[in-house]
Amino acid sequence: MKAMSAEILCIGTEILMGNIVNTNAAYIAKELAVLGINVYHQSVVGDNPGRLREALELAFSRADIVITTGGLGPTYDDLSKETIAAWFGKKLVLHQPSLDAMTRYFEKSGRVMTENNKKQAYLPEGAEVFDNPNGTAPGCAIEKDGRIAILLPGPPREMQPMFDHFAVPYLSRLSGQVFRSHCLYFYGIGESALEDRLREMMEKSSNPTVAPYAKTGEVMLRVTARAENEQQAEALLQPAIEAIRAEAGEFLYGIDVDNLQTAAVRRLQELGLQTATAESCTGGYVAKRLTDVSGASEVFQCGLVTYSNGMKEQLLGVSHETLERYSAVSAETAAEMAAGVRRVSGADIGIGVTGNAGPNASEGKPVGEVWLAVDSEWHKETIPLTFFRHDQDAREYIRYLASSRALHLIWKTAGMKDKS
Amino acid sequence: MKAMSAEILCIGTEILMGNIVNTNAAYIAKELAVLGINVYHQSVVGDNPGRLREALELAFSRADIVITTGGLGPTYDDLSKETIAAWFGKKLVLHQPSLDAMTRYFEKSGRVMTENNKKQAYLPEGAEVFDNPNGTAPGCAIEKDGRIAILLPGPPREMQPMFDHFAVPYLSRLSGQVFRSHCLYFYGIGESALEDRLREMMEKSSNPTVAPYAKTGEVMLRVTARAENEQQAEALLQPAIEAIRAEAGEFLYGIDVDNLQTAAVRRLQELGLQTATAESCTGGYVAKRLTDVSGASEVFQCGLVTYSNGMKEQLLGVSHETLERYSAVSAETAAEMAAGVRRVSGADIGIGVTGNAGPNASEGKPVGEVWLAVDSEWHKETIPLTFFRHDQDAREYIRYLASSRALHLIWKTAGMKDKS
Repeated sequence: MKAMSAEILCIGTEILMGNIVNTNAAYIAKELAVLGINVYHQSVVGDNPGRLREALELAFSRADIVITTGGLGPTYDDLSKETIAAWFGKKLVLHQPSLDAMTRYFEKSGRVMTENNKKQAYLPEGAEVFDNPNGTAPGCAIEKDGRIAILLPGPPREMQPMFDHFAVPYLSRLSGQVFRSHCLYFYGIGESALEDRLREMMEKSSNPTVAPYAKTGEVMLRVTARAENEQQAEALLQPAIEAIRAEAGEFLYGIDVDNLQTAAVRRLQELGLQTATAESCTGGYVAKRLTDVSGASEVFQCGLVTYSNGMKEQLLGVSHETLERYSAVSAETAAEMAAGVRRVSGADIGIGVTGNAGPNASEGKPVGEVWLAVDSEWHKETIPLTFFRHDQDAREYIRYLASSRALHLIWKTAGMKDKS
Repeated sequence: MKAMSAEILCIGTEILMGNIVNTNAAYIAKELAVLGINVYHQSVVGDNPGRLREALELAFSRADIVITTGGLGPTYDDLSKETIAAWFGKKLVLHQPSLDAMTRYFEKSGRVMTENNKKQAYLPEGAEVFDNPNGTAPGCAIEKDGRIAILLPGPPREMQPMFDHFAVPYLSRLSGQVFRSHCLYFYGIGESALEDRLREMMEKSSNPTVAPYAKTGEVMLRVTARAENEQQAEALLQPAIEAIRAEAGEFLYGIDVDNLQTAAVRRLQELGLQTATAESCTGGYVAKRLTDVSGASEVFQCGLVTYSNGMKEQLLGVSHETLERYSAVSAETAAEMAAGVRRVSGADIGIGVTGNAGPNASEGKPVGEVWLAVDSEWHKETIPLTFFRHDQDAREYIRYLASSRALHLIWKTAGMKDKS
């Protein structure tokens, strides 16, 4: 089958004017790559019927499928559906199930459904309707003469689930295949080093495909198989994942786990362990990320942000002599912070982070020098981190990467308990 | 003078494929609005000379100015400059000052400059060159027959300063005017309520212009004046800012301060006050945001993240009876946390936050119930917050808004010291 191509057309004056960053285009582009659909153009136009018609004409001159976001709402300037239906020569007709769903949605959220909201339940005749459980405007797919338009709402929290649950199955049906992915999360290896290890397998294999995504300080690999059904796709995926594990398993911290904090919290839950954190330069970033994860309360005792030396002594019992002799930014202080917070909280794993996140040198230590320590009955370790970056985002960058390393250290230390 | 129009053309396969979210387009669009330049289209194409030429042709058929990002780097697929120069019928010539700057940049960062890096110092003949102190690839502006192309690098931390320091003055010169803005930050009033208060003045005034930007839980107003020089622009701005202050001054927390945490830290610094935080449901988010601000160490004593009841008792001295009788999610617990962290740290202002950020009810309290308290010698207050949101992003939303309110409370309480 010839590869299909799609164009992403985001509609909305707020995106055009820069009041909203266009995360929808990135989300859809990434998902289309997984489905093997090529994207050569993304465009943005405002809520303007004339320019939308022109953009549609242009998009269909160079792609089989046009995926739009935005302009499905109830107000007078939401004109995507009207304009696109007219372009396809289709009328808008009332879709009763959508009107019923919308009525229920308004009842549930305790708001009043006004007359102009009903406009959202009118959809192009013959369209396949996509439910919107997270909002009021349904989406749809329109097909005519081999041209396909997929209309999605603008807010990402409505668009993303609709894309996953309706657009992906619809597009899969077009290709007659099922797509299934797993995401593998790596820490401690760069994107190019990981690609080097997997190059041969990535080049040889067209099904499953393996695509790397660099995140700040991490790499995610998405492994995607296509097959006639989910079982067959899964059967293709498992040996590919084992092959990746054989090449780079020492850096793999989880499959389908989303991020380091979730991997750490889930492992602590599984093993029935508790952690506690003592932070200086990261200022609560480790605690904040751990508690991003629902269920963190089961495994997270407390986090002490001891910014001043006095607090390090008073709350964590770091010795005055250590601070005087080695400074607050040192291996010794990090280790005493980790031991101190474990003692204070009674947690199984204590973490200490201290350093200089900039922008100015302090304690006689350069910007970017950070010390990390872990304390537990079965494992103690002190790790020096050095970051070379001095631009305006250096502070956030250093603090984020130091907190990532701390989360990974919790995950790693918890995993060593079994073997100790 | 007729209003100019510009098209934003972002070049790069990583944006096209969705591996990078296109924040550049939003940044540039917003800045162009300030300059009074209309934007009707944004487009994205990959690193493909053929499609770039077509996109350029199309863009100049509908706009006076085309602003590109990306494709200025040293590798073989960075072809923006070559393709655009050819489209203008211009040769690339060595720009010695750029080569010198690049050599210095490599020396400073201790890396070796390879031969292909030199390609970045070749620029279209007659172009106005834009320095890049944050990277290696210079940008430039090319003009011919009334058509203008502005070429900027792809990484936002290189693109944004270059846009501000070179593209804005260049574009201002085109219009023969100087533009100057101030940003006013509001908390506690919604975008539409603020617009209602200022509607008359916003509609009447075309210079300065007043543009609102909604941020999560906040509103920013940008007031922009154009004039022949900076002094005249500033003279237009001051009365407009005073008029806004008269209408909505009670919600204004700062001018050109960027965010709540910076406003809070700066005010504490000015008044020589210290704060300390005790967090439960926000899990360190308040501490993390305070310490985002460089200089926080002068005013932030410590932050205690007491997730468990035991830790609330042990570290903060919250009474067992209070926790039993009123639960951890209560006004009483929040107040004892605030008082406790102030006592432990000796800070002037103590903050307590406790609540349920979801996704499940806990302590018999519904998701979205949060209690916030402040404790100081001159002001004590307990504030109930209720958030109605239950989708997948609710946890982050509740935690973020609760931490914003806490930061605002620190700012407000510090300001009351003077008057007490």
